[in-house]
Amino acid sequence: MGTYDPNNIFARILRGELPCRKLFEDDHVLAFHDIHPQAPVHVLVIPKGAYISLDDFGARASDIEIAALFRAVAAIARDLGLDAPGYRFMANTGADAHQEVPHFHVHLLGGRKLGPMLSRKAGE
Amino acid sequence: MGTYDPNNIFARILRGELPCRKLFEDDHVLAFHDIHPQAPVHVLVIPKGAYISLDDFGARASDIEIAALFRAVAAIARDLGLDAPGYRFMANTGADAHQEVPHFHVHLLGGRKLGPMLSRKAGE
Repeated sequence: MGTYDPNNIFARILRGELPCRKLFEDDHVLAFHDIHPQAPVHVLVIPKGAYISLDDFGARASDIEIAALFRAVAAIARDLGLDAPGYRFMANTGADAHQEVPHFHVHLLGGRKLGPMLSRKAGE
Repeated sequence: MGTYDPNNIFARILRGELPCRKLFEDDHVLAFHDIHPQAPVHVLVIPKGAYISLDDFGARASDIEIAALFRAVAAIARDLGLDAPGYRFMANTGADAHQEVPHFHVHLLGGRKLGPMLSRKAGE
């Protein structure tokens, strides 16, 4: 899994070195709009702790941190009015899933019909 | 959100009324292979409690139940050797995301390059 890179873009956002369009923040979680949205709603929800991926988060985070993150995803979706029409959340770990930033993050997507869960063919 | 349907297919699997290809089980979580896999690895990870969706799970489940579920996703991925090549997990809530079974479930997908996170156009 390697070592956490403290200069990844989300670490810099957490330190206030880079701006974000913040939606939600508490002791354990920060949520902000993705700068390249793939749906009308595309929010990133991240832990404040230095975790690379779900693998790292699941191994080292406390129950409180894990619950706080996924409760935040649900609460933000509700605040945005997505619970009635529906939404999807997902996270990518590693190269096969095209994880781009090595700080664990959950994508919250909604605001339109989201199409199939996965392309059927092997992706590019 | 409606009322939990105790006869949904995952409730029946949890009660042992329908079979599944079980991968993992503990006090809070059951994991089994999806019967219509969309990738070489396609596992469903579900809470044992009666929760309809992430919205419901986030609102009513305990920190322990929430942590158990997402730790299980990470642990199963590791056991299957997916942490090095990578994997994706996701959950669908409601109609826009095509949630099919009204018992909260997380899809764990891997074993190939997974392609883009979402189809770019409004889905069918």
